[in-house]
Amino acid sequence: MSDKPIILVTNDDGLNAKGIKALVAMVKGFGDIYVVAPNRSNSGKSNSITVEVPIRIKKVRDEENLHIYSCKGTPVDCVKLALNKILPRTPDFLVSGINHGANTSVSVLYSGTMGATIEGCLNGIPSIGYSLNDFSADADFSQSIKYGRKIFANLIEKGLERSVCLNVNFPKGDINGIRVCRQADGRWKEEFDHRQDPFGGDYYWLTGYFKNAEPNAEETDEWAINNGYASVVPTKIDMTAHQLVEDLKTWDYEVED
Amino acid sequence: MSDKPIILVTNDDGLNAKGIKALVAMVKGFGDIYVVAPNRSNSGKSNSITVEVPIRIKKVRDEENLHIYSCKGTPVDCVKLALNKILPRTPDFLVSGINHGANTSVSVLYSGTMGATIEGCLNGIPSIGYSLNDFSADADFSQSIKYGRKIFANLIEKGLERSVCLNVNFPKGDINGIRVCRQADGRWKEEFDHRQDPFGGDYYWLTGYFKNAEPNAEETDEWAINNGYASVVPTKIDMTAHQLVEDLKTWDYEVED
Repeated sequence: MSDKPIILVTNDDGLNAKGIKALVAMVKGFGDIYVVAPNRSNSGKSNSITVEVPIRIKKVRDEENLHIYSCKGTPVDCVKLALNKILPRTPDFLVSGINHGANTSVSVLYSGTMGATIEGCLNGIPSIGYSLNDFSADADFSQSIKYGRKIFANLIEKGLERSVCLNVNFPKGDINGIRVCRQADGRWKEEFDHRQDPFGGDYYWLTGYFKNAEPNAEETDEWAINNGYASVVPTKIDMTAHQLVEDLKTWDYEVED
Repeated sequence: MSDKPIILVTNDDGLNAKGIKALVAMVKGFGDIYVVAPNRSNSGKSNSITVEVPIRIKKVRDEENLHIYSCKGTPVDCVKLALNKILPRTPDFLVSGINHGANTSVSVLYSGTMGATIEGCLNGIPSIGYSLNDFSADADFSQSIKYGRKIFANLIEKGLERSVCLNVNFPKGDINGIRVCRQADGRWKEEFDHRQDPFGGDYYWLTGYFKNAEPNAEETDEWAINNGYASVVPTKIDMTAHQLVEDLKTWDYEVED
């Protein structure tokens, strides 16, 4: 077995997306690369797992230092299967993306790209999710590759605290530099597109736009990508609002029999 | 339009689960109840949203102070559709569950019950997710209803900080009391069940068990439910590891042209 670092590569746009090819190019030369990615788009799949149907995996091909597998599951399924059934040992690093579309602010909660990244983190693997603020299938990832590689090289050199992963977002076009940020406050505002099928049945398409609650906050990821910077947000698994634990102890919990 | 509080009820086990009927019983009398829930099980769906197929909703029936809708989508889809297309106005409260199975520790990340709860929270609605540590379809929710109602009454009286929701878990059997906790550190350890179909194709069932990294930490939700207590964890939307933002600014971000 090779003693090179093992790098697990996955995404949520599927194995044929341009973004995952860019990601392989980004980490090339840093170790043995295993790509285990969904066979089709899994956008918006968050941390979801497949529990009610079985999952299939298929080896696509081997090249030098590059092994590619296709998986009929979610991004998190891909990571779990890679760790348990595909890789020769626990990987040294996980990278996910490069997503076609930004995953700033609360999109971290819906994102399959970040779902896979968080799954790597849960398993103690230093993990980075990368996204580019451009939904187009033919997006230009050349700048993302250059800046993303620099962040990855830092991760290799400096490591990362357990239970924390990185959420990296690139602006469209030229990049002015890299900023470490916090997640912006905001939310998606839905606009359902209501239609009727030929048989009179109603159905709805989920559409909408992101509403930033603090567009001028320069320390946020949203501000960064809207001003030409790549954003790096340290992202943690623990969702406890620790500052409220003591407050909530003052509620009345006496239950009568 | 009624000026009673509006309570949105959803879950991830689907409209026919015993748990959601228990949840309706729990909040009965507190206002006008709208149930908008998936038409079938959506376990493990996390915060996922449906973007590649349209979503259908169907009114099931109206009773006094109770309106029931079935939705062919994820728990988060149910909340988004309820807010945008079904409810007469933004609801005053959202409750999700009662899930058949615990959602303590990192299960908050995979849980559809908590996905819906977090979605309510994102929309500024005071929201609680409830789960019972019993997977059986015929689980006994009588204690959960009693203790859950007490927590809900506190929420009505005291309110909750914006961007924070509650993750409530009940032990199986008798409840000794309610404890405010933090999320336990731990992870799911997968054991894929490998099989072959009649045509020689491989497939895998995702199975596994939860491995608690700190079984003796009495301030955690896992300890609580394993010792007969209901756990209340304040859960926040912001996943930023704030304590690391300054650290990460010391990395080298100089990218050569």
